[in-house]
Amino acid sequence: MAHLGENRYGKSRVRVMKVVRHETHHEMKEWNVRLLLHGDFETCFTEADNGKILPTDTMKNTVYWLARESQAATPETFGIELAGYLLANNSQVTKASVEIEEKSWEQLIVDGEAHPTTYKMGGPEVQTASVVIARGSEPQVSGGIDGLMILKTTKSAFVGYIKDKLTTLPESTDRIFGTRATVSWDFSEPVSDFEETRGQVLTALLKVFAEHDSLSVQHTLYDMAEAALAAAPAISKIKLTMPNLHCLLVDLSRFGQENPNQIFVPTDEPHGYIEAVIER
Amino acid sequence: MAHLGENRYGKSRVRVMKVVRHETHHEMKEWNVRLLLHGDFETCFTEADNGKILPTDTMKNTVYWLARESQAATPETFGIELAGYLLANNSQVTKASVEIEEKSWEQLIVDGEAHPTTYKMGGPEVQTASVVIARGSEPQVSGGIDGLMILKTTKSAFVGYIKDKLTTLPESTDRIFGTRATVSWDFSEPVSDFEETRGQVLTALLKVFAEHDSLSVQHTLYDMAEAALAAAPAISKIKLTMPNLHCLLVDLSRFGQENPNQIFVPTDEPHGYIEAVIER
Amino acid sequence: MAHLGENRYGKSRVRVMKVVRHETHHEMKEWNVRLLLHGDFETCFTEADNGKILPTDTMKNTVYWLARESQAATPETFGIELAGYLLANNSQVTKASVEIEEKSWEQLIVDGEAHPTTYKMGGPEVQTASVVIARGSEPQVSGGIDGLMILKTTKSAFVGYIKDKLTTLPESTDRIFGTRATVSWDFSEPVSDFEETRGQVLTALLKVFAEHDSLSVQHTLYDMAEAALAAAPAISKIKLTMPNLHCLLVDLSRFGQENPNQIFVPTDEPHGYIEAVIER
Amino acid sequence: MAHLGENRYGKSRVRVMKVVRHETHHEMKEWNVRLLLHGDFETCFTEADNGKILPTDTMKNTVYWLARESQAATPETFGIELAGYLLANNSQVTKASVEIEEKSWEQLIVDGEAHPTTYKMGGPEVQTASVVIARGSEPQVSGGIDGLMILKTTKSAFVGYIKDKLTTLPESTDRIFGTRATVSWDFSEPVSDFEETRGQVLTALLKVFAEHDSLSVQHTLYDMAEAALAAAPAISKIKLTMPNLHCLLVDLSRFGQENPNQIFVPTDEPHGYIEAVIER
Repeated sequence: MAHLGENRYGKSRVRVMKVVRHETHHEMKEWNVRLLLHGDFETCFTEADNGKILPTDTMKNTVYWLARESQAATPETFGIELAGYLLANNSQVTKASVEIEEKSWEQLIVDGEAHPTTYKMGGPEVQTASVVIARGSEPQVSGGIDGLMILKTTKSAFVGYIKDKLTTLPESTDRIFGTRATVSWDFSEPVSDFEETRGQVLTALLKVFAEHDSLSVQHTLYDMAEAALAAAPAISKIKLTMPNLHCLLVDLSRFGQENPNQIFVPTDEPHGYIEAVIER
Repeated sequence: MAHLGENRYGKSRVRVMKVVRHETHHEMKEWNVRLLLHGDFETCFTEADNGKILPTDTMKNTVYWLARESQAATPETFGIELAGYLLANNSQVTKASVEIEEKSWEQLIVDGEAHPTTYKMGGPEVQTASVVIARGSEPQVSGGIDGLMILKTTKSAFVGYIKDKLTTLPESTDRIFGTRATVSWDFSEPVSDFEETRGQVLTALLKVFAEHDSLSVQHTLYDMAEAALAAAPAISKIKLTMPNLHCLLVDLSRFGQENPNQIFVPTDEPHGYIEAVIER
Repeated sequence: MAHLGENRYGKSRVRVMKVVRHETHHEMKEWNVRLLLHGDFETCFTEADNGKILPTDTMKNTVYWLARESQAATPETFGIELAGYLLANNSQVTKASVEIEEKSWEQLIVDGEAHPTTYKMGGPEVQTASVVIARGSEPQVSGGIDGLMILKTTKSAFVGYIKDKLTTLPESTDRIFGTRATVSWDFSEPVSDFEETRGQVLTALLKVFAEHDSLSVQHTLYDMAEAALAAAPAISKIKLTMPNLHCLLVDLSRFGQENPNQIFVPTDEPHGYIEAVIER
Repeated sequence: MAHLGENRYGKSRVRVMKVVRHETHHEMKEWNVRLLLHGDFETCFTEADNGKILPTDTMKNTVYWLARESQAATPETFGIELAGYLLANNSQVTKASVEIEEKSWEQLIVDGEAHPTTYKMGGPEVQTASVVIARGSEPQVSGGIDGLMILKTTKSAFVGYIKDKLTTLPESTDRIFGTRATVSWDFSEPVSDFEETRGQVLTALLKVFAEHDSLSVQHTLYDMAEAALAAAPAISKIKLTMPNLHCLLVDLSRFGQENPNQIFVPTDEPHGYIEAVIER
């Protein structure tokens, strides 16, 4: 009566740190890896036959082993190698996907200079990469960033929207605009300069966010994305998710005070959620 | 050069508690609602025209207003009403989706009886519902549960899997099997007895989990899903995600002790991840 | 110029699960242990002499080793054994403290009966124990519970408080009273029936919470504590921390609706915080 | 039979953002405030008399009102003003304490320059301040930082420690040393240059952490603290809590690989915990 539909399995939260020890300095990366396999696993579900199951523990070991073998300096490259290895060595697998988060470790500044072997966490955001390889196809590669917290204290308005019987939001010509952005960009070609592209995209996004005369989150999101596409020729499209970090103007008139856009209450919930893909 | 692709927006984490005050007892529900709209919003992105934008603040108010008007006793029913209201009152919207989480408040037991107006949080899991309505179509409705933590201390084995040069996992004929399950089930008809179905599905899932002679997570997942389909005629398919809550047998031989399956270290990361859809 | 003041060190988040395998059923406990040592460690700080340092890694191993040796069925008893072992085997240690959290695993109910080897997480709360032993002294033992989420939908008022120029809170004779309580109780004697006491305390606390005509959080907290002291002869005092889980009545008059104590917005922040010790 | 012991109450997680709008740039601070009062509250507990209770909701309003009135640029100064206000206006209060966390917003760098009105979250750490004022006494003021994540990939050893039957940790002459430090420093005088001191302390701590030939966490902690005391004349003592962010060297020999200190697994639990106060 029942039958198996779409399915996948793998290992999540495989953390690995790699230290490349140069004479003058170290390179250090901390990655959190998730691997998922699609393939011919039906008999495992329906007949308890584990003969085609690569244990998720072995997938974890594969991350450690490959981290040692690999020269990959970006999560995108490491993801391509990892997905490729799993496909090449497991004929029952038809598609492998890898997601990697890289923590924001930055070289610590001591006496005005970057210390060669010491690091400080530079922000809550993580750099991300996603690689999917279907057997016989080119890798589909995305780069991204999750949890980028940015905020501007002026040049943000929101007026002219629909009013109905449930509207209570006052129009504002100068509000706080904060967001915890999640971004991902798709590469046109599987082999690209991932590092350079990451820099181009983020620089463009941040510059537009700062300088934009925002008339809505949507308006700013679009112009940020458009600038990223213009700055990064290797990408075909970009997706931005920009939930509001609402900062509510406090009503101080109850205490006999004015509040000329000075005192706000930041809130986490509820929050607005705006998401869009911008393509060439 | 750039153009807008897929996009949606709305409000997340709209929390609402409803207390229905009967003479002999109260009914209390705490819901966390997310609403997302698809539609004709291009000019907002590209021309900063907010004329078709229903503010997310108004969506929040809609939740509060509707919670007062509605007789809905399940998150599925409330989701259908909410998505329907947004579509009916906003011609620019082509699709509305609503996701609701209900917290696990249970009546507190005092002197052996359920107290009529006092509650205790019964577990970390939340009851979920998802409703999507495209204009002109029937609602697509799912029920579910997120974060259901269950564990069995016997009747779980894992042997006969692929061994390769990276294998270090020993076979086990009696291991701990714990998971933090996420489940969702799709209804064949948009109007069903959501509450009764929820009970049928969960009872079936838990009974099989407890009694199963598990030869792998996949094996148990499939039999749990099959039992749920058999028990709940209103659903067409069910999706289970069952990440491992790994409990590692401690090597006590280093201290001159045996460890006959008694002392384990529970770990959160890395963890196995198994996901499948089972259909009729 | 500088000198070492108060200091301590140890290991946190040592997780251990113990399964006692009876013929008819299993007993399973999941504990999260923290161990801290005070003692003669000055030269480690000031002269980099590690000769008196028991590595925290060894403390972790001690938890695993003792879990296997011990017959302790409660976290209080295990804490006494663990602190005692560390003191007895490390002459440089002058005081050992152990804190243990036990997760709320409950036997799963299948067909109306508790399944002998399967468990479900019963709530977000953890059962706690704290043991401090100073060399030459009796153990100081506390039991407790953290994160107990309870809520009542009636019999809670708050009126007659101070009003000043910054007051905006309206008085209420019927509000929601929710809390995420943290409780700890001190034992008069180091060896007591910890399990029985835990039951006495929690039963008394919950019964009063449910039945109380609350005129403030303080009022209910005190009566809960008094009932616990009356019910549990082995304890000398009890500390309750009861932050509010505020549920704000929504102003629906803006939408032309009444809100007769039916629709609320639960909020996490800001929240009230009330804490008191009640002694015999 | 029962009587009230130590008690306090107040408001937690009062978030407030203040934007000071200069012509050329803005100053923006986001604070999370906790206020607690001690005083003559016994009848509230024992007789349900709320006549001496300042509602926690009013305390929240006090934060907003004072944020508007105040010129305070540091959390220490704002804490002094807030505790002082509560004491001055509530004769039943004998002691007021205020804890403030300031988020790590930094001016965003655009085209190589700090943008005057745009910010990025610079790290997971928060700047902290704690103020306690007992009626009739000088304020006790501390500054601090919580959650400072720092890591060095060399110049860290751990040898010469106690070995016993439960020891399994191998000695290491070159390990990763990572920590999520929490620091607080006490001021000798209630009115000091809090901002300058914060800079002095943090610069000293970070420089020593980077350059230290660490023979243990204790060893480095002490030298960091000593340097901070030397750099910051306004403080009387400093407390450092430095839990390990353990990075475990992976055993790659099972896969026929060497691992010359290159591939590590970062883990969150269990973790070492070292805490000490260093005084002048």
